[in-house]
Amino acid sequence: MLDDAAAGNTIPKDDFTAAVPDLRVRLLNAQFDLSSADFAVVVVLAGDDRLGANELVNRLNEWLDSRFLDTSVFTVPEGPELARPAFSRLWDALPPAGRMSLWVGGLMRQVRAHLDGEVTEAELRRWCDHLRRTQEAWIADGALVLKFYLHTPAAVQKKRYKKRRKRDDAWRYDHRDWEMARSLDAAVPTIETVLRETSVTGAPWTIVEGTDKRYRDLSVARTILAALEARLASPPPATAAGVLEQFADLDQQATVLDHVDLSATVTKDDYRAELARLQGRLHRLADRARRRGVSTVLAFEGWDAAGKGGAIRRITPALEAGDYRVHAVAAPTEEERRYHYLWRFWRDVPRDGRVAIFDRTWYGRVLVERVEGFASPAEWQRAYDEILDFEAQLVEHGVVLAKFWVHISPEEQLARFEARRDTPYKKYKITEEDYRNREKWDAYVAAVDQMVVRTSMPDAPWHIVAGNDKRYARLAVLREVVAGLERAVG
Amino acid sequence: MLDDAAAGNTIPKDDFTAAVPDLRVRLLNAQFDLSSADFAVVVVLAGDDRLGANELVNRLNEWLDSRFLDTSVFTVPEGPELARPAFSRLWDALPPAGRMSLWVGGLMRQVRAHLDGEVTEAELRRWCDHLRRTQEAWIADGALVLKFYLHTPAAVQKKRYKKRRKRDDAWRYDHRDWEMARSLDAAVPTIETVLRETSVTGAPWTIVEGTDKRYRDLSVARTILAALEARLASPPPATAAGVLEQFADLDQQATVLDHVDLSATVTKDDYRAELARLQGRLHRLADRARRRGVSTVLAFEGWDAAGKGGAIRRITPALEAGDYRVHAVAAPTEEERRYHYLWRFWRDVPRDGRVAIFDRTWYGRVLVERVEGFASPAEWQRAYDEILDFEAQLVEHGVVLAKFWVHISPEEQLARFEARRDTPYKKYKITEEDYRNREKWDAYVAAVDQMVVRTSMPDAPWHIVAGNDKRYARLAVLREVVAGLERAVG
Repeated sequence: MLDDAAAGNTIPKDDFTAAVPDLRVRLLNAQFDLSSADFAVVVVLAGDDRLGANELVNRLNEWLDSRFLDTSVFTVPEGPELARPAFSRLWDALPPAGRMSLWVGGLMRQVRAHLDGEVTEAELRRWCDHLRRTQEAWIADGALVLKFYLHTPAAVQKKRYKKRRKRDDAWRYDHRDWEMARSLDAAVPTIETVLRETSVTGAPWTIVEGTDKRYRDLSVARTILAALEARLASPPPATAAGVLEQFADLDQQATVLDHVDLSATVTKDDYRAELARLQGRLHRLADRARRRGVSTVLAFEGWDAAGKGGAIRRITPALEAGDYRVHAVAAPTEEERRYHYLWRFWRDVPRDGRVAIFDRTWYGRVLVERVEGFASPAEWQRAYDEILDFEAQLVEHGVVLAKFWVHISPEEQLARFEARRDTPYKKYKITEEDYRNREKWDAYVAAVDQMVVRTSMPDAPWHIVAGNDKRYARLAVLREVVAGLERAVG
Repeated sequence: MLDDAAAGNTIPKDDFTAAVPDLRVRLLNAQFDLSSADFAVVVVLAGDDRLGANELVNRLNEWLDSRFLDTSVFTVPEGPELARPAFSRLWDALPPAGRMSLWVGGLMRQVRAHLDGEVTEAELRRWCDHLRRTQEAWIADGALVLKFYLHTPAAVQKKRYKKRRKRDDAWRYDHRDWEMARSLDAAVPTIETVLRETSVTGAPWTIVEGTDKRYRDLSVARTILAALEARLASPPPATAAGVLEQFADLDQQATVLDHVDLSATVTKDDYRAELARLQGRLHRLADRARRRGVSTVLAFEGWDAAGKGGAIRRITPALEAGDYRVHAVAAPTEEERRYHYLWRFWRDVPRDGRVAIFDRTWYGRVLVERVEGFASPAEWQRAYDEILDFEAQLVEHGVVLAKFWVHISPEEQLARFEARRDTPYKKYKITEEDYRNREKWDAYVAAVDQMVVRTSMPDAPWHIVAGNDKRYARLAVLREVVAGLERAVG
């Protein structure tokens, strides 16, 4: 695979000089058109030729308008980056629709870490798997992902360094480059595996030979230009139509919500005693989790007026004010809409030792967005897998993840709506739309059922909480949060 | 000052219960109106009563709509926060126009650090000074800043903890709270000094007694409501009219640009040799700076077509790709416009060991925005002091800061414009507006002169670079960058 690319391609200087002016004009034109387009562009540059990659980055920044090109270099992750799941930094660097980002590095380090025994075979596979799924999510969302692997045969690299030794700019290469050249041939099989495993439909790796600089720069720039022009000229191929709705005749079937015993209650005295006990326990566990750098993500979904906020307000007083953030999730803003829908949730993934509480979550994609038609069937149907991969990355990083569906009966909901209407400051929490949403109760039940069935994992199960009795629900939630932390740090 | 506040204020339960519903409705109304207003609200909560502050935070999150209230708790700064100037995290947490943030903590830690001898008297004064200036900048920009110091006399705190000892929720207080109560009386003089030093016109500290919870919560919420309603009802007092333009009859005077010898040149051979030497030296120094955690900020201003980009492209090849970012500064986006103009530059302050290169900078405020009238005289005139304080914070943090004005003659500029017109891919860099801007040359000269005179500091001087010969200019810039790093890590 890599050998095939090392065909000794070169481009004569005159041809290069003749080609560049037109190429630059077209690149700038395409970049300009991109600014008003509804997709983002990620150009990934990996390879075994560090100096070549640096030169290529400088070249692309010269040929393109660098004001509209964000370059991110993924060096060895440091403190703040290590405190969150590995791919956080990819999501942080993701461009919004209309912009182009150039990403450099990351792949060879993973290969090297595997060869050095720091990363096991299984870990490397998992890394490739997450990377593939992440790309698939972006591409399905419309992103144009262009990936280049810059390959310069070891013999060529060595010769180049030897020649440079006598020159003024010998400082440009150092021991890392020698080591790379020395160990490259042994690494090729692993590199090829990683390239294969991280190729996805719509975003294969383009292997570029780095022996001749002019060939290298022209072929990368031309590939970017061709892909960008093609994409600007025509919309992406329609995403696969939604698969057949497997739960279409749901009203014939029992759902997970049918099993919830909504009659459960707790007396006021028992509630008070148990609340104090659980909050005290939670406080001690949260303290230990912070010291051990274990972070926690609590995801709350449930019917309107089910009591999510009340449950959250029984958790937070047991935490240190600086340790947690509550994210009340509303409809995405104009800016957020320019990214993949998971982007804003990745942004709020807590760093090690912290707690993030989501009042409504990424599951909006398969609940409200599905039921209201804000997401197409193809979009919400692929969301299950996207969410599973997101949560798997949290769990693998060591995050304690608990997901709650707070359940109430339609009758209880109606009674609460009426009570809200009669309380001046609660009127704000109730609109005509809330009443209209009640008509879609069955559609939501179907969506909740499918969500729970498809996204329950051993390390990230759904907890269906009986909410008709608020006190009972609050204790049930607290108990699960405590249990989750017990398992992690108890 | 604090004693005066400890007057034993209480509010009976019935009065509290009667007052709350109306208060909540009005708070929610004001919050709703804020969402379409053109100013931001920062509510700062400091104090000596940690538990009281936590309760108050929960209370405000209950009374206000927490979806539109961002709570930031400033705990002991950790890794990523220590790697940037201290106030970076305030700027990071700054809300945009239309939103409200609740900031908790930070002040007592500074007091305590001083009393423990970790922070000298001079450092404490400087901290207060930066805090005052920062607030002044935000307030002048339209922000509503409301500051509360929650004071509960030591005797009251001790009594409260003793009483709690026997209760189920004894976990709520810990050794920190006892220590605070024990050492509070001795700390009062320092607290009072800090409160005095950080009070600014338009944002004094409101001292709230925390002995009675109902009094505490009601008085804070009412103060927020009154200030917010008043501000929503009427625009802020007009900012002071611009001071008299001291450089009005500038064309009679010599300017700093008059002294620049634009005839300086360098031969191609000398250039090549010197470039390689300087880049090699820069590479070694940058490597050392990274290892020592010293960060660098390079600020480039200059006439259109002066060669800023070319100079920057001679610096970056000497740096490791992962260590630097080039920020090409264009007009602020819609989102950026909702913040103080320095916000986006604070966002890009590099962390320790990294390099940030700005192609156009925060000086746009006193250059293009002044000359084109995008900023009012009051706005650009106060910008000098705001910028000085920003840069002083960088320098105090240990950042190597170098500022360049790349200077060319009007004739040279015209020649370059014409040349650009004749190069297909450079046409993009030239518009009719560029030609029109030439008519304002003298106004820009005046603005540059005043900028250089008012914002040159020993640790952050302006370097005026003769740019008519591009090669000469590139070497001059490189030399200054190398010299700055030599002083810091040489």
